[in-house]
Amino acid sequence: MLIKDLGEIRLINRIQRIIKNRDKYNHILSDNLLVGIGDDAAVWKASECIQVATTDTMVEGIHFNKGTIPFRDVGWKAISSNLSDVAAMGGKPLYALINLGLRPETPVNDIDELYAGFLDACIEYNLQIIGGNLVSSPTTFIAIQITGESTHAPMLRSNAKPLDQIGIIGWIGSSKGGFELISHPRVITSTKAKQQLLNAHLHPIPRLNEGNILIDNGVSAAMDISDGLLTDLHKFCEASRVSAKIDGCKLPIEKALINVFPDNYMDYALNGGEDYALMFSTSPKIMEHLKRIVPAPISIIGNVEDGPIGEVIIIDKLRNHILTASSGWDHYK
Amino acid sequence: MLIKDLGEIRLINRIQRIIKNRDKYNHILSDNLLVGIGDDAAVWKASECIQVATTDTMVEGIHFNKGTIPFRDVGWKAISSNLSDVAAMGGKPLYALINLGLRPETPVNDIDELYAGFLDACIEYNLQIIGGNLVSSPTTFIAIQITGESTHAPMLRSNAKPLDQIGIIGWIGSSKGGFELISHPRVITSTKAKQQLLNAHLHPIPRLNEGNILIDNGVSAAMDISDGLLTDLHKFCEASRVSAKIDGCKLPIEKALINVFPDNYMDYALNGGEDYALMFSTSPKIMEHLKRIVPAPISIIGNVEDGPIGEVIIIDKLRNHILTASSGWDHYK
Repeated sequence: MLIKDLGEIRLINRIQRIIKNRDKYNHILSDNLLVGIGDDAAVWKASECIQVATTDTMVEGIHFNKGTIPFRDVGWKAISSNLSDVAAMGGKPLYALINLGLRPETPVNDIDELYAGFLDACIEYNLQIIGGNLVSSPTTFIAIQITGESTHAPMLRSNAKPLDQIGIIGWIGSSKGGFELISHPRVITSTKAKQQLLNAHLHPIPRLNEGNILIDNGVSAAMDISDGLLTDLHKFCEASRVSAKIDGCKLPIEKALINVFPDNYMDYALNGGEDYALMFSTSPKIMEHLKRIVPAPISIIGNVEDGPIGEVIIIDKLRNHILTASSGWDHYK
Repeated sequence: MLIKDLGEIRLINRIQRIIKNRDKYNHILSDNLLVGIGDDAAVWKASECIQVATTDTMVEGIHFNKGTIPFRDVGWKAISSNLSDVAAMGGKPLYALINLGLRPETPVNDIDELYAGFLDACIEYNLQIIGGNLVSSPTTFIAIQITGESTHAPMLRSNAKPLDQIGIIGWIGSSKGGFELISHPRVITSTKAKQQLLNAHLHPIPRLNEGNILIDNGVSAAMDISDGLLTDLHKFCEASRVSAKIDGCKLPIEKALINVFPDNYMDYALNGGEDYALMFSTSPKIMEHLKRIVPAPISIIGNVEDGPIGEVIIIDKLRNHILTASSGWDHYK
């Protein structure tokens, strides 16, 4: 059945039923939500003064292609990319509004799968879907907005200071590797390596727990890597009016990526995008402490310097400089 | 110049400049906003415990057509449709996140105009743009999310009670009239009537002030009319498990609409959509008080009854019943 056969009201009812029938989801619902799906707006009782909000969008043909990525993964990813932004501020995500633009010819089953993916992420990270909007559109798109709270002043891109060390939690480049495997299925690779790279692309992990540990331990500068390390580090440095020197050998690159893409792994790591790794900078002392207490590995990739604003220098094995301008993912080029 | 020639970073800079250069907008900025545009997420200090959030989307080819509606009006309308939802909850809007899906071939000037429209509405209603997202898309779309606060428990669709009177603030049908004039420019009409109907379609007024007066004076059931009176009243009655009896002669229909569309005005009023009028129900005593203190006219269109759940009966001049099912705007049919 297609959604144009179902009609809007029955589609909304169906979505509400999908949500209601997901047992585990019902265990995470909070009493602070006063009005959820179904009224003009959602309403909740704030328990912390500091509110955090972010939004992110996925468009068919640009961020995903039907047929190559299961809708359940699209759902997971659409939520996770937003959660990654909340993680980078040190916040705790609570509520999601979901905007869907859907082609009338969309099979109803795709929506079931999409919501299954939304709910997977909601259950994993204690997030409630509180409302949204369904519209007809010639192009499928998913625009999600997440609100959360924080007990601390947020971690900012603009708080990096010279002498800070720069750390990354999570891998970079693997998502691009997974994307390439999907786009060129004939690349020869082991099943395990393939699975690792596909997972990085289809099922990214927002670093929420890690973000909370960082902020609790005095980190004040952080950003998630969504447009590629170079682009995002350039933005980070520009916001903080500093420069960065990075050791290319220290980048957190999975062996699977190096094995499958021996000629391109460094390009993917620097410019790949959609990694949703957590980048931050802090004093060597705090960094040392964090390396002991954060469960996930932290890669110290280089240092913040008092150089030309926004400049990012990558040093290779031979200590050659590769000077970089912003060269990551431009949404319009 | 097209946005693909400008690139993402320069487009973002341009948007930030447009916002910064709008003098009047800078006067409404609040100290409670801790982090605005430019970081991973926006952050603010809540001043009331009750937070209200809503989202709405406009898609090119579905909700507006380039060439027939100026982008400045699209901007106003995209913000106002969200504000109307906040008004219907009795909330005070504060912050907006703006998601744009843009074709790479979009002229940069269109974006300037769109933001001019956003800012017109922001200045009028004290709303701050705190962030958003730009993505490339084959179809232009605008997904906006607005967060606000409230000092009261919200007005709900589900709070209507038998014996309540049903009131409307604002006109119904005029927006559909304006849409028809745009779609069929040869309809003969006076300049003044035309302007009134076009205004209703292009420049709808969210009833924020009125929503606040209603909630302050004890109204607990309200909803905005965005999908047509019949559809929305049906939803309202269903949520409250009541029925409604409406006097067709009491509907707030502008003379201009009747004059220009003598054969269709009642259909437009009942099923038109995009009116953004404020519908509510309350006791006759409160209604009488409200008629004295609300500056805008209130039309009492009928009563809530203890009939079949969701049923809406319209009585015409001869007191004939027109029984109605939900028959307004279905986004997928």
